[in-house]
Amino acid sequence: KRSYNITLLPGDGIGPEIISISKDVLQLAASLEGIEIKYQEMPVGGSAFDLAGVPLPEETLAAAKQSDAVLLGAIGGYKWDKLEKKLKPETGLLQLRAGLDVFANLRPATVLPQLIDCTTLKREVAEGVDLMVVRELTAGIYFGEPRGFGVNEKGEEIGFNTEVYSVSQIDRIARVAFETARKRRGKLCSVDKANVLEASMLWRKRVTDMAADYPDVELSHMYIDNAAMQLIRDPKQFDTILTNNIFGDILSDEASMISGSIGMLPSASIGQSGPGLFEPIHGSAPDIAGQDKANPLATILSAAMLLRYGLGESKAAERIEAAVMETLNRGFRTGDIYSAGNKLVGCNEMGEQVMKSV
Amino acid sequence: KRSYNITLLPGDGIGPEIISISKDVLQLAASLEGIEIKYQEMPVGGSAFDLAGVPLPEETLAAAKQSDAVLLGAIGGYKWDKLEKKLKPETGLLQLRAGLDVFANLRPATVLPQLIDCTTLKREVAEGVDLMVVRELTAGIYFGEPRGFGVNEKGEEIGFNTEVYSVSQIDRIARVAFETARKRRGKLCSVDKANVLEASMLWRKRVTDMAADYPDVELSHMYIDNAAMQLIRDPKQFDTILTNNIFGDILSDEASMISGSIGMLPSASIGQSGPGLFEPIHGSAPDIAGQDKANPLATILSAAMLLRYGLGESKAAERIEAAVMETLNRGFRTGDIYSAGNKLVGCNEMGEQVMKSV
Ligand SMILES: CC(C)[C@H](C(=O)O)[C@@H](O)C(=O)O
Ligand SMILES: CC(C)[C@H](C(=O)O)[C@@H](O)C(=O)O
Repeated sequence: KRSYNITLLPGDGIGPEIISISKDVLQLAASLEGIEIKYQEMPVGGSAFDLAGVPLPEETLAAAKQSDAVLLGAIGGYKWDKLEKKLKPETGLLQLRAGLDVFANLRPATVLPQLIDCTTLKREVAEGVDLMVVRELTAGIYFGEPRGFGVNEKGEEIGFNTEVYSVSQIDRIARVAFETARKRRGKLCSVDKANVLEASMLWRKRVTDMAADYPDVELSHMYIDNAAMQLIRDPKQFDTILTNNIFGDILSDEASMISGSIGMLPSASIGQSGPGLFEPIHGSAPDIAGQDKANPLATILSAAMLLRYGLGESKAAERIEAAVMETLNRGFRTGDIYSAGNKLVGCNEMGEQVMKSV
Repeated sequence: KRSYNITLLPGDGIGPEIISISKDVLQLAASLEGIEIKYQEMPVGGSAFDLAGVPLPEETLAAAKQSDAVLLGAIGGYKWDKLEKKLKPETGLLQLRAGLDVFANLRPATVLPQLIDCTTLKREVAEGVDLMVVRELTAGIYFGEPRGFGVNEKGEEIGFNTEVYSVSQIDRIARVAFETARKRRGKLCSVDKANVLEASMLWRKRVTDMAADYPDVELSHMYIDNAAMQLIRDPKQFDTILTNNIFGDILSDEASMISGSIGMLPSASIGQSGPGLFEPIHGSAPDIAGQDKANPLATILSAAMLLRYGLGESKAAERIEAAVMETLNRGFRTGDIYSAGNKLVGCNEMGEQVMKSV
C-alpha cells in the first residue's frame, strides 16, 4: 500500500475552510486509489505570528521538509499589515518557499467552457485559452541582496532591492519550462526586459542557449510590457510562459483574471527534490473569511496537482479533476463564479458535491 | 506673437512617417491660434546609431534641452537588437529621458465610444474607461546602481540590477500624481509591492504621508499583481494610478491594450522645469515601417499634449483633440482600428483628414 505524509498549512483568512474541505476530497480520492495518507496540520502566516510570534515557526518548516508534499491555504490579512517586514505573513510564505527550495512555480490558466461567462474578455478572445506560467520562485528581486533602507550620497533616505540571477538559477527554471512546454503544445515564450536590465540579458542568453537541447520546442522571447498587453489582446497565442519571480507574480495574476475565475486556479511549486508546495493562486480574502462563502475549487485542484506533481499519483489526480468538472457541469457554483441558472452553494457544500463525483 | 522652438525626433521604424504628418497637424493648429513654431529635426535611436555611432548624439540632447518641447516618434528595431547595451536604441531613449530630467510620465488610457469594438474586453466592462497612469520615469530599476554582470560567491556568472528610490524621487512623482488626480476625478491609487520590496515600503510610506496635503484626493494602495488583475476585472474603478518605473511600464501597456487602441494613445513626460518629452505609447513597428500603414493619431494626440502640458497652449491642444474625434466620427480608420462600415486609410491620409477638421 502506497503511503504518504502530507503537511497541511491552512494559514489565514479563508485558508482553514478551504483546506479543511480540500483535505476531505484529497482523502477520498486517495483512498479510492488505495493510497494511504497521514496528515499533520501546522501554523503559517499571520495565524502563526499570533500563536508563536513568527510567520514561519521552525517546527512548521521542519514538518514540511519531512513530509512528501505540502498543501497550503492562503496567508495574510489587514490585521498583520503593519507588522515589521520580518514578521509579516508574506515573509513566512517566502521563507517557506526558500526553505523548501521550490524554485519552479507552475501556474496554469485555462478558460473552462462552463465558466466562459465569468471572464471580462469577449467570448471569442477567451474561448479555448489554456496556458501555463512557469515562474521562478526563489530568487530574483524577492530574495536578492543587498536590500533594505539606507542613505544616499545626498544624505537622503532610500529603499533598495537587488534583482539578480545566476546562470544556475536561470538554467534550472528554464529546464523546467522547456520540459513543461514539451509535454504541452511545444511552444515556449520567455518573458523578460532584456532591452533595459542586465539580469534579463543574462536570462535571455541562457534560455536561448538551452533551446539547442529542445529542438522540438518553439522558443520565442517577449518583453514584459508587451506580454502584459498580448495576454489581453490574444491570450490564445500562449502555450507555456517562462519568466522571473516578479514578472511571474504579475503575469500569472493577470492570466488568472483572464480565465475569469481566480477562485478556480491551483498552483504547484516544485524543486529539484524534496516535497513540493501546492496552493491556490488566490489570497486569503479576509473580508469573507469564516462565512462559508469561499470557492474551494482552487485548493481542491491544488490537491490534484499535489497528487500528480508531488506524489506521482496521476490516477487520483484525475479523479479529482474530473469530479470538479462534473460538479461544474451539474451546475454548482460559489458566489465568485455564479451566473443565473446555476445553483449557488457555499464553500463546504461545493466540496461535498465534488466528493459525490470523485 | 507667441513663438516656440520644438525639437522633432522621428527615430526609427514608423517614426519618420508619424512625425512628419503630426508636425503638419501641429503647425496648422498652432498657426490658427496665432502661435509661431520653429522646428529642428534631430536623430535618435537606431537611426542615430547608423548615422553617428551612438543612439543619442550630444547634439541631439543639446538641441532638445534648448528647445521648448520635444516630440518623439518611436525608437528600436530588430536591426539593432544585437548591439551591446550602451549602443542600443532603447539606451538612447533612456539617456534622453534622464538628460531632460523628465521624471513624470503621464499615460492616459481611455476607451473612445467610436472605438469600443476594438477592445477585447466586454463592452460593459470597457465602456467609459478613463484612467491616467502616472509613471516615475528617471529612477528605479531602469537607472539604479550597481548594475551589470559579475560573479557570485560560487564563482557563477550573474546579471544584476538595483531597484532604488530616494524620498525626493518618490515625493516629486507623488506630488505630480496627487495634482493630476485633483484635476481629474480625485481618486489616486498607488501601486507597489510593499509586502515584499523595501523600495516599495518607502514608496508607500512617503505617498501615505503626502496624502495629508491633499484631503480632497482619495488615496488607496494596491499591490502590482492585484493591479494587473483589477485592470482587467474592472478598469472603471481607476482614475489616476501612481507607480514606479518598471511597474508603470507594464501597467500602462496593459491599460493601453484595454483601451483597445494602442495606436491611439499619447504620452507626456515632464520635469520640474525645462522642456517636456511627448511621444506615442506604441513602438516603432518595424514590420510596417515605410508602408504608409501606421496610425498617426497617437503622435498627433501627443502633439496636443505637447501644446497643453509643454507650452500651456490649451486652445491649440483642444483644436487637435476635437479634430481627431471628428475624424473618427467621420469614419476614417487606419488598419489597426478598422472595423466594417468605416473608411480604411493610410497614415498620411489620416493626418490629412485630421487637418480638415482642425
Ligand atoms: C503574498 C505574496 C508574497 C506572493 C508573491 O508575491 O509571490 C503572492 O502574490 C503570490 O503570487 O503567491
Ligand atoms: C523602449 C523601452 C526602453 C521603453 C521603456 O521600457 O520605458 C518603452 O517600453 C516605454 O514604455 O516607453
